[in-house]
Amino acid sequence: MSHIQSAAPYLTKAAELRAIFAKDAVERDKQGGRPLEQLRLLKQSHLLSVNLPVQYGGAGQPWSTVFRIVREFAKADGALGHLFGYHTLALNNVALRGNADDTARLYHASARNDWFWGNAGNAMSDTVTVRRDGEHVVLNGYRPFTSGSHIADIIQLSWTDEIEGKRVFAAVPADRKGITALNDWDGIGQRQTGSGTVTFDNVHVHSSEILGTDANRGKPFSTLTPLIQQSVLLNVFIGSAQGALAEARDYTVTKSRPCVDSGAARHIDDPWIQRLYGDLFIKTEAATLLADKALDAFDRVWARGHDLTEVERGDAAATVAGANVLAGETALDVTSRVFEGMGARSAVTAYGFDRFWRNVRTHSLHNPAEYKTRNVGQWLLTGDYLQPGIYR
Amino acid sequence: MSHIQSAAPYLTKAAELRAIFAKDAVERDKQGGRPLEQLRLLKQSHLLSVNLPVQYGGAGQPWSTVFRIVREFAKADGALGHLFGYHTLALNNVALRGNADDTARLYHASARNDWFWGNAGNAMSDTVTVRRDGEHVVLNGYRPFTSGSHIADIIQLSWTDEIEGKRVFAAVPADRKGITALNDWDGIGQRQTGSGTVTFDNVHVHSSEILGTDANRGKPFSTLTPLIQQSVLLNVFIGSAQGALAEARDYTVTKSRPCVDSGAARHIDDPWIQRLYGDLFIKTEAATLLADKALDAFDRVWARGHDLTEVERGDAAATVAGANVLAGETALDVTSRVFEGMGARSAVTAYGFDRFWRNVRTHSLHNPAEYKTRNVGQWLLTGDYLQPGIYR
Amino acid sequence: MSHIQSAAPYLTKAAELRAIFAKDAVERDKQGGRPLEQLRLLKQSHLLSVNLPVQYGGAGQPWSTVFRIVREFAKADGALGHLFGYHTLALNNVALRGNADDTARLYHASARNDWFWGNAGNAMSDTVTVRRDGEHVVLNGYRPFTSGSHIADIIQLSWTDEIEGKRVFAAVPADRKGITALNDWDGIGQRQTGSGTVTFDNVHVHSSEILGTDANRGKPFSTLTPLIQQSVLLNVFIGSAQGALAEARDYTVTKSRPCVDSGAARHIDDPWIQRLYGDLFIKTEAATLLADKALDAFDRVWARGHDLTEVERGDAAATVAGANVLAGETALDVTSRVFEGMGARSAVTAYGFDRFWRNVRTHSLHNPAEYKTRNVGQWLLTGDYLQPGIYR
Amino acid sequence: MSHIQSAAPYLTKAAELRAIFAKDAVERDKQGGRPLEQLRLLKQSHLLSVNLPVQYGGAGQPWSTVFRIVREFAKADGALGHLFGYHTLALNNVALRGNADDTARLYHASARNDWFWGNAGNAMSDTVTVRRDGEHVVLNGYRPFTSGSHIADIIQLSWTDEIEGKRVFAAVPADRKGITALNDWDGIGQRQTGSGTVTFDNVHVHSSEILGTDANRGKPFSTLTPLIQQSVLLNVFIGSAQGALAEARDYTVTKSRPCVDSGAARHIDDPWIQRLYGDLFIKTEAATLLADKALDAFDRVWARGHDLTEVERGDAAATVAGANVLAGETALDVTSRVFEGMGARSAVTAYGFDRFWRNVRTHSLHNPAEYKTRNVGQWLLTGDYLQPGIYR
Repeated sequence: MSHIQSAAPYLTKAAELRAIFAKDAVERDKQGGRPLEQLRLLKQSHLLSVNLPVQYGGAGQPWSTVFRIVREFAKADGALGHLFGYHTLALNNVALRGNADDTARLYHASARNDWFWGNAGNAMSDTVTVRRDGEHVVLNGYRPFTSGSHIADIIQLSWTDEIEGKRVFAAVPADRKGITALNDWDGIGQRQTGSGTVTFDNVHVHSSEILGTDANRGKPFSTLTPLIQQSVLLNVFIGSAQGALAEARDYTVTKSRPCVDSGAARHIDDPWIQRLYGDLFIKTEAATLLADKALDAFDRVWARGHDLTEVERGDAAATVAGANVLAGETALDVTSRVFEGMGARSAVTAYGFDRFWRNVRTHSLHNPAEYKTRNVGQWLLTGDYLQPGIYR
Repeated sequence: MSHIQSAAPYLTKAAELRAIFAKDAVERDKQGGRPLEQLRLLKQSHLLSVNLPVQYGGAGQPWSTVFRIVREFAKADGALGHLFGYHTLALNNVALRGNADDTARLYHASARNDWFWGNAGNAMSDTVTVRRDGEHVVLNGYRPFTSGSHIADIIQLSWTDEIEGKRVFAAVPADRKGITALNDWDGIGQRQTGSGTVTFDNVHVHSSEILGTDANRGKPFSTLTPLIQQSVLLNVFIGSAQGALAEARDYTVTKSRPCVDSGAARHIDDPWIQRLYGDLFIKTEAATLLADKALDAFDRVWARGHDLTEVERGDAAATVAGANVLAGETALDVTSRVFEGMGARSAVTAYGFDRFWRNVRTHSLHNPAEYKTRNVGQWLLTGDYLQPGIYR
Repeated sequence: MSHIQSAAPYLTKAAELRAIFAKDAVERDKQGGRPLEQLRLLKQSHLLSVNLPVQYGGAGQPWSTVFRIVREFAKADGALGHLFGYHTLALNNVALRGNADDTARLYHASARNDWFWGNAGNAMSDTVTVRRDGEHVVLNGYRPFTSGSHIADIIQLSWTDEIEGKRVFAAVPADRKGITALNDWDGIGQRQTGSGTVTFDNVHVHSSEILGTDANRGKPFSTLTPLIQQSVLLNVFIGSAQGALAEARDYTVTKSRPCVDSGAARHIDDPWIQRLYGDLFIKTEAATLLADKALDAFDRVWARGHDLTEVERGDAAATVAGANVLAGETALDVTSRVFEGMGARSAVTAYGFDRFWRNVRTHSLHNPAEYKTRNVGQWLLTGDYLQPGIYR
Repeated sequence: MSHIQSAAPYLTKAAELRAIFAKDAVERDKQGGRPLEQLRLLKQSHLLSVNLPVQYGGAGQPWSTVFRIVREFAKADGALGHLFGYHTLALNNVALRGNADDTARLYHASARNDWFWGNAGNAMSDTVTVRRDGEHVVLNGYRPFTSGSHIADIIQLSWTDEIEGKRVFAAVPADRKGITALNDWDGIGQRQTGSGTVTFDNVHVHSSEILGTDANRGKPFSTLTPLIQQSVLLNVFIGSAQGALAEARDYTVTKSRPCVDSGAARHIDDPWIQRLYGDLFIKTEAATLLADKALDAFDRVWARGHDLTEVERGDAAATVAGANVLAGETALDVTSRVFEGMGARSAVTAYGFDRFWRNVRTHSLHNPAEYKTRNVGQWLLTGDYLQPGIYR
């Protein structure tokens, strides 16, 4: 597809950022809170609009480029991978949930200003009350798990319009009066994702900020959000596995001492260590190939736009689900077992190698592999495409 | 590479043959011995020369087509996958071990006559004595593990020339006086591969039958045999996993009854069964993608011919090794666990589903995953390319 | 408990029989059918009444001795372990299902005559019709999975009395007119268990042969059958794992050659082989200890007789379930991986090492680990004892 | 063995302490450093001399009681389990390394004063220089991994006497001039174990503080230290697995919400969750039984005293090694997977559930399972008892 620009320059840029993020990733993992300097660099890179259409000022890259950037960041810092991915999701929700005018207006502005989008629309719990006040809707309450809202320029909101009985979406400036990101996330991993609480105290949302309905609402294309979420997660897993393996390899080569009972001159000559790294590498590579297949599948699905059929969407959902499960399983395994290759002296907080496992362990819980695996099995056994759902 | 013919027609032909092989695969697994009718069909298909250069009457397909045919056959019958792969290996050894004249002569004849090549050159044990008698070399002794020799038109031989201290290769008609394929293979799996003993009783090999030396002897290209072997094995594993999974799925959908404690109307509605098949499918798919990567790697290496460098060869060897390990591990797992999805009534010899596990278990022992995994680890840790060896 | 005779002489006798059974276990696995000579030796040993009370002519041993004999036989021959266990179960069903008179009459006769009991009472499927004819009940139809009926002296029958709406049990001579054991079992494993079909052609059962009701019917003690079944299976698993490991160890020590890439003088000096056997041994030992705990738990439960409470029974059921799951999982793993320790030459039918895997694979399907594992989890999470069920 | 006091009161006391330790275990895991209040309670309990002979003022308990206390503490706090175990090891080294006078003197004093013993004798690295000064030996240098030295009353030292070419042991007050426990341990787990550096600045050790040689020096009994170390570690693993499982179970029962796709009213009704907990429970129970077997084996070995043979010692070493391997493997698995049962909201630092995995991951690295597993395999394959070594 010659009209698509190569992803290479964006991935190169992402790799440069990853190298910078890596420098204090261990320290920032300890602190939690807000990665403000990293956000500044991200904005400067213009990667925040990397997959917006060129006509709106974006780079016009496919989603696979977005997910590869997620993966790249996660090699050093799962939280930044997560933040970048969920930002892009929130931003693209405009096209999925809104109409052409919303898209033009918000995409132009976002690309021009390098806005970072946060999400406070978690719909799993009914914790927000809504009332109308003239041209405004007024929100009170809170949302949990609001990743990215602690550093956002724009916050995506959503609620149920009880009169019309439908889900409503809006995008408002993060400094809107009454919105408070509590920055109270204190997870065992993914510590700078700001996945804590946002509170709403008489937050006024003007009708012009509410995404407009569109003739295509309800079509399969508008149900792609879960696949994007699952793709963000799976690429955080892949990046974490790759990063942990690479850091462990370097440590093992440069610092590990041979085991007293090994008889080996160098630790890397111990057949045990060779087998361990061989096994971790093979499993990581296989999971990566399945993840790559899922990227391709999602690019094809997205490219279909409003012509996308339920069957196409459902089959891609099975591919993404399978890749997600294997990526999570592999990343948990790799991020724990690398310590066996490095040895006792590697398990100190100064190195922070445990952040990889903590990140994956934390992230994988939002997304139970059990149900995804069942979905793939159901798809295989019944031959039916997967129905859209919260996690698929 | 537009000048390469599509593999599609050959794979279609292979799928047709696989469907025929499948009809009595269970029965032939019980019998062992010689798959003579299947050999007739193979010859008729001209697939035996599928990767010989077009100039010699072959189809000019890359090795990946060969290995995909191995995989296709192994979906129903691991032994036929093995036989086809090892035939192609023995045939191509002419180009690796001989000179241009040998190649022209033997390839033309083999393609024209649809010869099946067997292998009696196993060099692991010193069980053949050699003496000279004028223009002939005379062999006495035996070789074990001579896959395909029980149905071969041509037998590949090899021995050590003690005067010149080098390995010598020859190709002679299988009905050469003094050669006896004992057909004594009685493995627990891969039962029609004829992997038993060939005895030599004053077998005369004329000097014109000995592969000539060549200026390129000793170059990396001439050390590719182990990678072909490993690729045959890994694609037998992949095909076995895929075939077992497909047969089990069909059985489960059409025959399995719901478990008494499941509360499910259909067995395929049991979350356990969905999870099981999802898991087996995901793992099989990942192993297949890694196998596909190894096919590509080997095609690239082969295409380099005598320009192939040690580094290129060694890096491809690591890829093939990794794919082999994962394929074997996955196939062992899948071929055992499919029974859990099918249930108690599936475990009878009439269905013969256990042949998949027996085939994989047997085949994988020739090829210890332990050393391959270590090799991959060594390659990752040291950054050095893999050295040629018996299994790499 | 000094009044209980030591199990030692019975286990010694069982070990002697096992050594005899081992001699042609591979050959009999190939043949399937009836282990008649082994049955003769079993009768001669009087082990068939080993756990009948002394007052009836039995040896008065606890069930743990029965299960240890099952385990001992299964080290060489899973089918004989199964047959012995299910015989003892069918025999003891008299005490669980009948009254004191039935027990006295049938136990005396069985101990005196060394009867072998077969089971044709599988209640999972409604394949038998029943009518009354004066003092007789007349059966027509068939039963599947009738282990032991092909060599039985006495056959246990059961059906649903539709008038009284309850399950009825009877014990009749196996040569009763109209009963035919088709000997049509052709499993991939457990090949001499005769787990095929018994047909009933106007089989007359006299009312005196029907087990009488008893005041204790319905008490927890009368629901112990599933725990005995699960204990038979789990000890077949344990014995199979132990037997496979012992045979593999001996083969490895005496026959295996060092791997070409190992650099080891002896195969048993290869760190890989040491690790493999260490791992298999450790896992087998842990599964055995859990099995032993289940034996103790069942002995305690049985000793409580009609005083047994639902809670006591249900807690023992959780212990037996857990032991069964781990034993099955371990046995599948061990019986497959031992081949990796032995190497390529071990995978021939002459050695028959694959019978261990085939036996375990076959047997484990009657008894899905999934539901047992869930039961243990439910018991742990809810704190409620397990309710009786078909598999618990 | 009626002359041995029941362990029950000591285990009850340990359980009471564990409940107290649990209250701030999460907080203390964050802080690292010194568990001074816990140390005070430990001294008050007199458990520090629980296995000293009664004649010296100890409770005369066997080592199994010590290891069960280690396990009990580790249910809430792996560091305290570790500290208690290594204290008891250092204390008992007096009997292993010294003579009867040393034993009488130091055991009496330690029991009377409830001394806590720390270890600064790690012999893996040559980091201490030794010179003589009259009646004193003067040490300079440092020791790494000096668990317990940060809170010790007495420090165990060791060095190589170059003149006599043998290992020398001494016990000195921790406040001896020149000894500094840097309290610089900053592990990712086992954070209050003080496993950092102790420095020696002209530390004077008087000849009377050096453990005297004894006729029994060099006998198998004097080589039991590694088995005690391995037993401490394995019981920290078992306790961690049990503690993580119990805490997770309680969280799951009281706090977890059903998964959105489960259709279950309560999370504990989800078959996935039941299976998960069933599996974790079964594996933990099996590992515990193997650990108990190792406790018994070590009690028997210790009871043999100086009559202990090499064979007895070596066979016990294999049992301890196997139990250690399975305990570590199980604990790593359980402490990671419990999060899947608890769900996303459990992965916050307020609960600190990740400390179990971090503790096990850290501790298991000092003690590679690879070599232990090989040792067990070697013992099984060769039939030879294990030779003493640093880890066996």
